[in-house]
Amino acid sequence: MRQLIEAPPELAALRGRLQEIADLQGIVQLLRWDQATMMPPAGAATRAERSATLDRALHEKLVSPELGRLLEGLEPWAAGEDPDSDEARLVWWARRDHEKAARVPADLSADLSRAAALGQAAWLDARDHADFGRFSDALERHLELRHRYVGCFEGVEHPYDVLLDDFEPGMRTSEVVALLADLRAGLAPLVSATAQDDRPRNDGVFDGPFGVPAQRAAIEGVLAGIGFDPGVWRLDPAPHPFASGVGRGDTRITLRYDEHDFGMALYSALHEFGHGLYAAGTDPGLDRTTLDRPVSLGVHESQSRLWENLVGRSRPFCDWLLPKLRLTLGSRLGSLDASGLFRAVNAVSRSLIRVEADETTYNLHIVMRFELELALLEGELAVAELPDAWNARMVSLFGVEVPDDGAGVLQDTHWGIGAIGYFATYTLGNLMAAQLWPKVRSDLPDLDESIAAGDFAPLRGWLGEHIHRHGRKFALRELLAKVTGEELSPEPFLRYLRAKLVESGQL
Amino acid sequence: MRQLIEAPPELAALRGRLQEIADLQGIVQLLRWDQATMMPPAGAATRAERSATLDRALHEKLVSPELGRLLEGLEPWAAGEDPDSDEARLVWWARRDHEKAARVPADLSADLSRAAALGQAAWLDARDHADFGRFSDALERHLELRHRYVGCFEGVEHPYDVLLDDFEPGMRTSEVVALLADLRAGLAPLVSATAQDDRPRNDGVFDGPFGVPAQRAAIEGVLAGIGFDPGVWRLDPAPHPFASGVGRGDTRITLRYDEHDFGMALYSALHEFGHGLYAAGTDPGLDRTTLDRPVSLGVHESQSRLWENLVGRSRPFCDWLLPKLRLTLGSRLGSLDASGLFRAVNAVSRSLIRVEADETTYNLHIVMRFELELALLEGELAVAELPDAWNARMVSLFGVEVPDDGAGVLQDTHWGIGAIGYFATYTLGNLMAAQLWPKVRSDLPDLDESIAAGDFAPLRGWLGEHIHRHGRKFALRELLAKVTGEELSPEPFLRYLRAKLVESGQL
Repeated sequence: MRQLIEAPPELAALRGRLQEIADLQGIVQLLRWDQATMMPPAGAATRAERSATLDRALHEKLVSPELGRLLEGLEPWAAGEDPDSDEARLVWWARRDHEKAARVPADLSADLSRAAALGQAAWLDARDHADFGRFSDALERHLELRHRYVGCFEGVEHPYDVLLDDFEPGMRTSEVVALLADLRAGLAPLVSATAQDDRPRNDGVFDGPFGVPAQRAAIEGVLAGIGFDPGVWRLDPAPHPFASGVGRGDTRITLRYDEHDFGMALYSALHEFGHGLYAAGTDPGLDRTTLDRPVSLGVHESQSRLWENLVGRSRPFCDWLLPKLRLTLGSRLGSLDASGLFRAVNAVSRSLIRVEADETTYNLHIVMRFELELALLEGELAVAELPDAWNARMVSLFGVEVPDDGAGVLQDTHWGIGAIGYFATYTLGNLMAAQLWPKVRSDLPDLDESIAAGDFAPLRGWLGEHIHRHGRKFALRELLAKVTGEELSPEPFLRYLRAKLVESGQL
Repeated sequence: MRQLIEAPPELAALRGRLQEIADLQGIVQLLRWDQATMMPPAGAATRAERSATLDRALHEKLVSPELGRLLEGLEPWAAGEDPDSDEARLVWWARRDHEKAARVPADLSADLSRAAALGQAAWLDARDHADFGRFSDALERHLELRHRYVGCFEGVEHPYDVLLDDFEPGMRTSEVVALLADLRAGLAPLVSATAQDDRPRNDGVFDGPFGVPAQRAAIEGVLAGIGFDPGVWRLDPAPHPFASGVGRGDTRITLRYDEHDFGMALYSALHEFGHGLYAAGTDPGLDRTTLDRPVSLGVHESQSRLWENLVGRSRPFCDWLLPKLRLTLGSRLGSLDASGLFRAVNAVSRSLIRVEADETTYNLHIVMRFELELALLEGELAVAELPDAWNARMVSLFGVEVPDDGAGVLQDTHWGIGAIGYFATYTLGNLMAAQLWPKVRSDLPDLDESIAAGDFAPLRGWLGEHIHRHGRKFALRELLAKVTGEELSPEPFLRYLRAKLVESGQL
């Protein structure tokens, strides 16, 4: 607690300003959650204006010259502090946020926010009608605004770098291109050797039909078992599953239910639980600072995909899960046993929908979206051509015909809100999770036994200690190096995947 | 549209600033709705900080010197405009809001907002435990902050005037005292002549038990019939029923279900529908201005109580309602006919709970709360003495013993959020509704027939045209005089009540 004595007086003033910024950002989260879950459809236009005004108020606080002066006063002091200290990191991130915001005019920032709310409504409408034409104007607008946004920054290697940096600080497009190329090369033989065209998702074990109330009860049982506390968390239906850290003590996850695929709800629940646990797990000492949040979407996905796949599709988890599911989903599970469940949830198939994809093909969905985003941003692809380009890639990558835009180009919410530059973080998360996992297993030698027994506290504790509590202090590669000593690489993921495919009898 | 040509350029700048203010106020509404319906309990502390920061941002905009300069520039021009024009009223209300906010330091404003969020959580906890002691610190804090708030204003007749003016602009405490004294004198013989101690609420016809899903279906049917559009409105459960106008196209009402009293949900639904319709009905030309909201809580209550009582407890409404209820609540309604339903829902009894009270005794609940608030604010009553004072008044006014704080002093949410100065507006609304009603009936001679036939469009249209569309333009007495030519008075309400009691066989 050296800082309490020696820190310059500007530090308290900086914290006060960052608290206000954190509060307004928390309210932004709440508005987005509400729009996706609760808001009546007719409220979209006014909500867009509310969001734009809130963004403008936030932007004013981020670019405040007084904030800049406080940072100037603090930086010489922070340079003498431990570079890993909360204070040094606080000053560094506050400077970064201030500089980035200052480059973007308030009007453009408000326009981006308004377009996100309007685009979300247009996407929902287009998705309901499986008609890309109802969304294309909103996507054109998103692209136009992103070109203006990119134009606010100088000396960038690639325009996409500017967008990617907002989701994955410090990561460059060229690095993602290289990682994805290596990964794709490693995946190709695995997909060829295992994927079946006509194989039902999860070998059909979750095809039901299962009524939504029974699914909801099953999901609540699973979530309660892994650490969901209803005094702190919410679970709601939404058109696209997501997690939202509204504030300390207020973590919200959403699911979509499909009567003919309980796997949809189950793996979304595990995925969003992983996100929520990370968002809720920052050190309380970071509360309402700029460090009190997940550092990047890649690290975020490392946590969600870890719970969804490395835990959720593991053999010991299947041992724990099956008896629980029998209680709520009952006889439709038939004579399935845990090893059958384990094989089924690791079945590889070429499929239409990213969020339903198995671990082996999943990253090819990401490769495809990343390539399309690059082409859109570089002007190589027009918005009007996007559905055809999507459908053509589905054929070339997966050998699958897309029946309509709803099951194709409109399936994800991200482009709806203009989140271009985001998709690659799913793959970065998959890679990171696979690199964390051997370290988890070596630190927790009884992990399999505790998962099979339904004791998830050791795993939650490990993740809290090594990942969650740091909040925003360390970016993906720095955090990974601190925990594992490794560089980010596709090899551990490919090794993990090969072993899983052998263990589950696919290879 | 004369203003488009002749209005000074400051008017557009003023509108821009008022839009931002309206947006932040809409977000305040959303935060309150969310806290009362959706937020996990553990989120209360952070939510209080979020609310305080949002309030501070709003306060900054309200007190902005630039807003003051714009008003100074516009006032000479506005003085030459039609005093009833949107523009003249806009400038007048913007000046009022600016002046009131400027008297209150930003820190106090944020403290009030934070205390509301914390007090709401403390009240919920106290109510759940029927233990006033868990809420008394929060109420002490509310009072202390209100004394500081009152101290910001000079030259007031009574400290309570300052609080009342925020809910009922221009109304003074002495006027409310006189109105309530006259009303109480008029009510006393009616209560004596009709009220029974042991008479069940609504003569027991709604005692069921009715399961919550069946009640919800019944309420949805009723609301759809009177004008609730699910594309625009939401209906959710909450510990205390309320309505919230989150924004245009986004109107939210909440209910509490009691398995042993369907009347609780039914009359709350009608009440909150009345509020919602008013909030949603402002002229679209006023959108995102300072006029785009209900002018006062008294006028608000005139609309909610009109739907709850003058419509909802009328004979033609019973004719329409009963067959609808049979569809969802079925056989438990037994051999009840419409005239029996009409008698039952107008039964007079001395009861514990304000929101369940009949029309005749309702205002005595208000008298009691108003007197207690005055005593608290004047220092005549200590917070610790409040439960005893409450219970003693329940005996002297109603002859009813209060079994516990949950059914007594903790029953209403208002003190929880520190809304002191609010309760009298319920009675003002009852009086106003009774004064509007003869005018409604004379303008719509077929009103009874259309209500009995389930056609509520004429009534909605009349209220929209005469009340809702004006938003905040005219304060209660001015609006009442414009529509009816009358001063506010208890006499029309007492006349209405006597006639109703005769018609329903109570007198």
